[in-house]
Amino acid sequence: SYKQSTQFGKRGMTLEKEIIETNKYYLVTDLAVIHKKPTPIQVVQVDYPKRSAAVIKEAYYQQPSTTDFNGLYKGKYIDFEAKQTNNKTSLPFSNIHDHQVQHMKKVEEHGGISFFIIRFKQHNETFLLPIRPFIQVWEKQFEGNRKSLQYQYIKEHGYLIPFTLQAKVDYLKVLDSVYFNGGDNNESRRQKS
Amino acid sequence: SYKQSTQFGKRGMTLEKEIIETNKYYLVTDLAVIHKKPTPIQVVQVDYPKRSAAVIKEAYYQQPSTTDFNGLYKGKYIDFEAKQTNNKTSLPFSNIHDHQVQHMKKVEEHGGISFFIIRFKQHNETFLLPIRPFIQVWEKQFEGNRKSLQYQYIKEHGYLIPFTLQAKVDYLKVLDSVYFNGGDNNESRRQKS
Ligand SMILES: [Mg+2]
Ligand SMILES: [Mg+2]
Repeated sequence: SYKQSTQFGKRGMTLEKEIIETNKYYLVTDLAVIHKKPTPIQVVQVDYPKRSAAVIKEAYYQQPSTTDFNGLYKGKYIDFEAKQTNNKTSLPFSNIHDHQVQHMKKVEEHGGISFFIIRFKQHNETFLLPIRPFIQVWEKQFEGNRKSLQYQYIKEHGYLIPFTLQAKVDYLKVLDSVYFNGGDNNESRRQKS
Repeated sequence: SYKQSTQFGKRGMTLEKEIIETNKYYLVTDLAVIHKKPTPIQVVQVDYPKRSAAVIKEAYYQQPSTTDFNGLYKGKYIDFEAKQTNNKTSLPFSNIHDHQVQHMKKVEEHGGISFFIIRFKQHNETFLLPIRPFIQVWEKQFEGNRKSLQYQYIKEHGYLIPFTLQAKVDYLKVLDSVYFNGGDNNESRRQKS
């Protein structure tokens, strides 16, 4: 029952930027403390000019060892990865690395909350997909299954994230209903059934 | 200060590197999931040579907006900053920024655990200092008090971190006794008294 406006595609903002903006809103309204981790960069050469800041002259982007975002909500450790695709029917696994997925699995094992935020740009829909249904498909690729997550599967096992003006990707709303409603949450019900 | 030599054990490892090594040990032994955040770097110019990786040609170190390390231990969100000094009697507040301290305060308010790991290289001692006693001194600098944390104060309000071969900065041991012993922990007793 969540609806998303078609406007924000026109803002030229990527999903990541919209989540960063949403996190700022969460921070100033004191709802949550969640930050984007900096992109890891391997610095090879640095110049130290007199009287001014060090200039990095040669450096390379590194593979992130964990995820895009982490932080704290209602006393819980939160850890997630954001992915968007132009594809209509599936999210390809390219750009998702097994060590990231293993990290997210470990987070859940240690009592944290871990999930993907997945945007289908063509559908103008953004979903929160918990790590467990993700892993069920992820692990099958190693048995020769397809290397992507079907749109239909995400729709079935994920949760549509509402859009509001202050919080363009208002994922805390989903966390509230999925993880924080007193033990009888949707996610644990799904796991049991 | 990106270049730091260290006397410690003549291993040539800085405090930060030792914590990174300790975290790896915690990770492989499945004790905790705690990572160093990448250093934030503002990229200005990138070359995209054919058939090889993008080369960053101009970039600058940015002020970190949060802390060095965060992660998950026993279901709790953990967030901390590491500082070492050659000074014998105090840790100067230079290189600690108010927005970092405010971040750490917010972490505690949202139910996380936040602290400093402080090494006095001359004493060969490393302490865990919870954010609350830190803030009591931090805030007084704005009333004209000194801009440093006294060694004696840290000794009194902090906890010596043990050194083991596998975990050179074995701070989980301190977390266990200070935050995780069933509600009657040292830290909450200290707050009450
Ligand atoms: Mg991403
Ligand atoms: Mg530091």
